[in-house]
Amino acid sequence: MTLDQRIGANLPVRSGSDSHRLPIGSFEPELGGRLDEVSLAYETWGELDASGTNAVLVTHALTGDPRAAGGADESHKRGGWWEPVIGPGRPIDTDEYFVICSNVLGGCAGSTGPESPDPETGRPYGMRFPTVTIRDIVRAQKRLLDGLGIKKLAMVAGGSIGGQQALEWPIEFPDFVEKSLVVAATDALGPQGLGMSEIGRRAITADPNFQNGDYYGTGKTPDSGLSIARMAGMMTYQSAECQSERFGRNSATSGRSRMENPGGTFDVECYLQYQGNDLVGRFDANSYLYLLRAMDLYDAARGYSSLEEAFERIRAEMLFVGISSDWLFPARDVEATAEVAAKAGAKAKYVEMESINGHDAFLKDWDEFNAAISLFLERG
Amino acid sequence: MTLDQRIGANLPVRSGSDSHRLPIGSFEPELGGRLDEVSLAYETWGELDASGTNAVLVTHALTGDPRAAGGADESHKRGGWWEPVIGPGRPIDTDEYFVICSNVLGGCAGSTGPESPDPETGRPYGMRFPTVTIRDIVRAQKRLLDGLGIKKLAMVAGGSIGGQQALEWPIEFPDFVEKSLVVAATDALGPQGLGMSEIGRRAITADPNFQNGDYYGTGKTPDSGLSIARMAGMMTYQSAECQSERFGRNSATSGRSRMENPGGTFDVECYLQYQGNDLVGRFDANSYLYLLRAMDLYDAARGYSSLEEAFERIRAEMLFVGISSDWLFPARDVEATAEVAAKAGAKAKYVEMESINGHDAFLKDWDEFNAAISLFLERG
Repeated sequence: MTLDQRIGANLPVRSGSDSHRLPIGSFEPELGGRLDEVSLAYETWGELDASGTNAVLVTHALTGDPRAAGGADESHKRGGWWEPVIGPGRPIDTDEYFVICSNVLGGCAGSTGPESPDPETGRPYGMRFPTVTIRDIVRAQKRLLDGLGIKKLAMVAGGSIGGQQALEWPIEFPDFVEKSLVVAATDALGPQGLGMSEIGRRAITADPNFQNGDYYGTGKTPDSGLSIARMAGMMTYQSAECQSERFGRNSATSGRSRMENPGGTFDVECYLQYQGNDLVGRFDANSYLYLLRAMDLYDAARGYSSLEEAFERIRAEMLFVGISSDWLFPARDVEATAEVAAKAGAKAKYVEMESINGHDAFLKDWDEFNAAISLFLERG
Repeated sequence: MTLDQRIGANLPVRSGSDSHRLPIGSFEPELGGRLDEVSLAYETWGELDASGTNAVLVTHALTGDPRAAGGADESHKRGGWWEPVIGPGRPIDTDEYFVICSNVLGGCAGSTGPESPDPETGRPYGMRFPTVTIRDIVRAQKRLLDGLGIKKLAMVAGGSIGGQQALEWPIEFPDFVEKSLVVAATDALGPQGLGMSEIGRRAITADPNFQNGDYYGTGKTPDSGLSIARMAGMMTYQSAECQSERFGRNSATSGRSRMENPGGTFDVECYLQYQGNDLVGRFDANSYLYLLRAMDLYDAARGYSSLEEAFERIRAEMLFVGISSDWLFPARDVEATAEVAAKAGAKAKYVEMESINGHDAFLKDWDEFNAAISLFLERG
């Protein structure tokens, strides 16, 4: 029996994606509301063994998708977002592990999200979609893994909002996770990150095309607002050193700048415009708002008397990876989270990637990142 | 003869201001265009001596105005923006010095700017106002000082975009300036600052009420865009430490939040909204765009073969003040600028304010700032 036969419902998802999709039933998000028919899109690599315990879940970043690996195609020209990490003979070795990556609940890469039709009305949820949290995202993922016959995760691994999920997993499901790799994430986002999120949120909701989230089918989408939000996001993903080295005060020379600025356009302006425009069309603005809010709201201590109490639940071996130049989740905060976990009795280690690439280093600095992940998988 | 009698034309300016206004004739900005009738609004404290050499020019920050001192009134409830610095017996002692602060060219606090009527058409310039640079701003200030009978500046002092002016003054007019105090500013803004400016610029120009800058008299102003731009600005003015201490992840408790966010509103979100809304109404969006661009474009080396060549012109004693937690103009960059000035032969010193208050510390940390300024004025 192939995996496709086992899961049955493989509905088409966003163009260019080979994702499968599994219905996981109705879902009640922790902050209220209800979703009657939820399904999650996912991709897999490798084979699940008979015991169902060789699975590795990788969790994607804010605007990511289930295509963590699997080579290049039209919509993933450089391959999956963790292409060098996952595959035969690679650090997450698909000859050994069954690797799965699912689009998060609330996302727009095939899973149920704000652009999905509300079964009650047939119309897209829009802003009527309930607020979802990292815990909701993890709980939905658990149902997917159950549906795929996975009995235990050999590892869960992710960076940024994916790292928040990797941290929440062994708290929420302590007996299900053997190892957790938390990259560039902490138990809760700090006020600078919250502030930048707020700027992005305001930019989207102020766009007249936003229409309070009911823009589907109107022929008008809040492209400008989403683009500005993405620009604000990009600022949090890069370090000062990286921007100085890459852009400095150079003038834009490429033809990709769509708007000329008074006195000439700087390369960094052109780059931000490009990144902003690039997200438009491949990402849904409502999903951006919901996932950004999930990142903002994540607090590993929520529902417990303290962070220590939450961390006392952890049975998994934990590796926290900080990035020396990370602005969004500063390395010292990642280290502090690891220290609380260790004090709470978890087998928690911390390593720091020396990089000028800022928050995004876990999607760029393969050598250092792969070394860390290999060591963790082999020895813990 | 009182000052008012000497300068003649004291036209009314923005409500709540006691500024005077001096016509300085026509003006040709360095990047092109022409302004036929320019006047600058200004305020003064103390008396100009017979030699005309006891003047101190203080230069305001991006959204500042000429009210550097002079006590509280309806529109300046905490007094001038350098109130504790300027006055009888204060570090810039008005018993000794004649202190002047003028609204910059392109501003909206009484000086000729985008909301001023173009004499040719009678309509506000809007985006037809020419691009102005820090050098233009300084050249216009020079005409104002000439008009007031000032023969030499005992000191020019300012922070941020005001610090850029304080740096440009002794380069552009080497024989006119005895001392220059450059606070939280460098010879050129780095790419992170440029990026944040771009986000603000996009937010304003994307606001449908912006109407390509011709919103005057339409009853619609780009409040939302200006507010978002201000929020982006505020992020560059504060440090991570300061935001962590002040806001952390606290929930908003005051009633000043206008928009509730999903899952509750964080204090930092509420604060940014408040600051954004607070600027709307007291600042013109077009002026914001023009002054932001002047800050972006400033490059002390422009027109010279190198920064060293520009700095070789300096005859003034220079004090560069960096702020340890400044994100917009990092202390190390301020220090590097001071080092180039010293190498180029200028009497340049650097001091660093230890503060968690970020870029804004020169408007907050009075004790440390006043100590630096007193020492510089007394001993150089």
